[in-house]
Amino acid sequence: MERVGFLGPPGTFSEEAILKVLDIKENNLVSYPSPQAVIKAVDEGKVSRGIVPVENSIEGSVNETLDTLVFDSSNDVLIQKEIISNIHHNLIAPAKTGIKDIKRVYSHPQAAAQCRKYIKNKLPSADIIASSSTAEAAKIAYERNNTAAIGTKLASKLYGLEQIDKNIEDFEENKTRFVLIGKEQAKITGKDKTSIACFIKKDQPGMLLQILQEFADRDINLTKIQSRPTKKALGEYYFWIDLEGHIEDKNVGEVLDSLENKLREIRFLGSYPRSK
Amino acid sequence: MERVGFLGPPGTFSEEAILKVLDIKENNLVSYPSPQAVIKAVDEGKVSRGIVPVENSIEGSVNETLDTLVFDSSNDVLIQKEIISNIHHNLIAPAKTGIKDIKRVYSHPQAAAQCRKYIKNKLPSADIIASSSTAEAAKIAYERNNTAAIGTKLASKLYGLEQIDKNIEDFEENKTRFVLIGKEQAKITGKDKTSIACFIKKDQPGMLLQILQEFADRDINLTKIQSRPTKKALGEYYFWIDLEGHIEDKNVGEVLDSLENKLREIRFLGSYPRSK
Repeated sequence: MERVGFLGPPGTFSEEAILKVLDIKENNLVSYPSPQAVIKAVDEGKVSRGIVPVENSIEGSVNETLDTLVFDSSNDVLIQKEIISNIHHNLIAPAKTGIKDIKRVYSHPQAAAQCRKYIKNKLPSADIIASSSTAEAAKIAYERNNTAAIGTKLASKLYGLEQIDKNIEDFEENKTRFVLIGKEQAKITGKDKTSIACFIKKDQPGMLLQILQEFADRDINLTKIQSRPTKKALGEYYFWIDLEGHIEDKNVGEVLDSLENKLREIRFLGSYPRSK
Repeated sequence: MERVGFLGPPGTFSEEAILKVLDIKENNLVSYPSPQAVIKAVDEGKVSRGIVPVENSIEGSVNETLDTLVFDSSNDVLIQKEIISNIHHNLIAPAKTGIKDIKRVYSHPQAAAQCRKYIKNKLPSADIIASSSTAEAAKIAYERNNTAAIGTKLASKLYGLEQIDKNIEDFEENKTRFVLIGKEQAKITGKDKTSIACFIKKDQPGMLLQILQEFADRDINLTKIQSRPTKKALGEYYFWIDLEGHIEDKNVGEVLDSLENKLREIRFLGSYPRSK
């Protein structure tokens, strides 16, 4: 049976996302403690595929995912699919807990930060305590009195809790983009995306402009540009670029060849169907 | 007396950086729990200036600093100076602790991540425990047996510890760039930088190229481009740009006027002397 790695523990948004798009049973999912660990497991063949978050509409890029794919995995680890998930936070607690009974709320700090207004209005005197994940928070809420968690619907089911309040996030447009990674290149569909990392040679100040011009000349739309440090010197960056098209599309193939000549290094990270 | 806010508690890298460049006594420094809190204190006039980290050569941009300056502070909060600090991590513990006595190491997760190789080689069986700051870690190390911390030289002094090992970071080139913020515009020196945030109108896919062209046409070098989410929709970004020159330089003034017409919004974040 195929085994798929995800950012655990069970009940996180990563697991929710994976169950939405893959026809897979929960006991074929393998939980890992970090995006880096998921990617490493795919690289070493411990699982055939893995799902990791790449960016959130509020928090931005997940740097650990980008840097691990670019620096710490072999060239045959490729993005095969993107999955965009709506992130809904829920106030969850054991059955019969009323909102007035809640003295403590456990949550991952990012989840708590995304529900700041709700907490201020509805739980002004509760202690907000950091946990390592939303699922861990749910587990603690199950074990203690007067304690709630902020977590997924899936976590409330897994840990025998009830949803006291739904969709308690401050921003309506809260989405996370995940990618499925594996060792095979996804086939061309006509509505694809390609991810690359561009390393610029030292002292080429106008280089990003030249890169963008190469894409514009071939009518290729870019959907994401993220600069990240090369970890070699302050102010030296690589650019993670997502572009529309598949590496087998003529214009995409051409632009990658052309950039290969201009750049210190270009890293191909996969062509995959666009999520709609 | 002037009061200056920094990211505390005492003994952090922010305090080390501030004492290096400002002629100020330690008891005129006010410690805050987050970059956001420092910026807010300046904005509300509780301190006249503040120092916050903006980027690290390994970890990249400090998103909380960028987003707070762009979204959550008034237009008169300006960057006045940049300070680049070498980051050295030290293994610190109470006097007479030998490296073999150490069973637990407390540290901020980022600091621990930057010393991964050292920990693996020299402290393979120690538990690595997360603390909220390197200074907090030093405090705990002072109070418990067989316990060390990863922290600054300043923290080891403040909490009565000794340096068991110096410069234990994995990457040699580990630098953090801080900015000093306040409510007055720094004067032109001839070797300046300007920070701006550019908000692109919806459905302008080639706009970043046009922005970069505007700078290239006027021979203005860019030293940083960072995309961050607008927090309104997944895939909608603003660009934080650092460029060489002062707003009073003719070519910089012109380019800002020109961009003002093209962009949905441009936010001026200050002109200030370049660190060398």
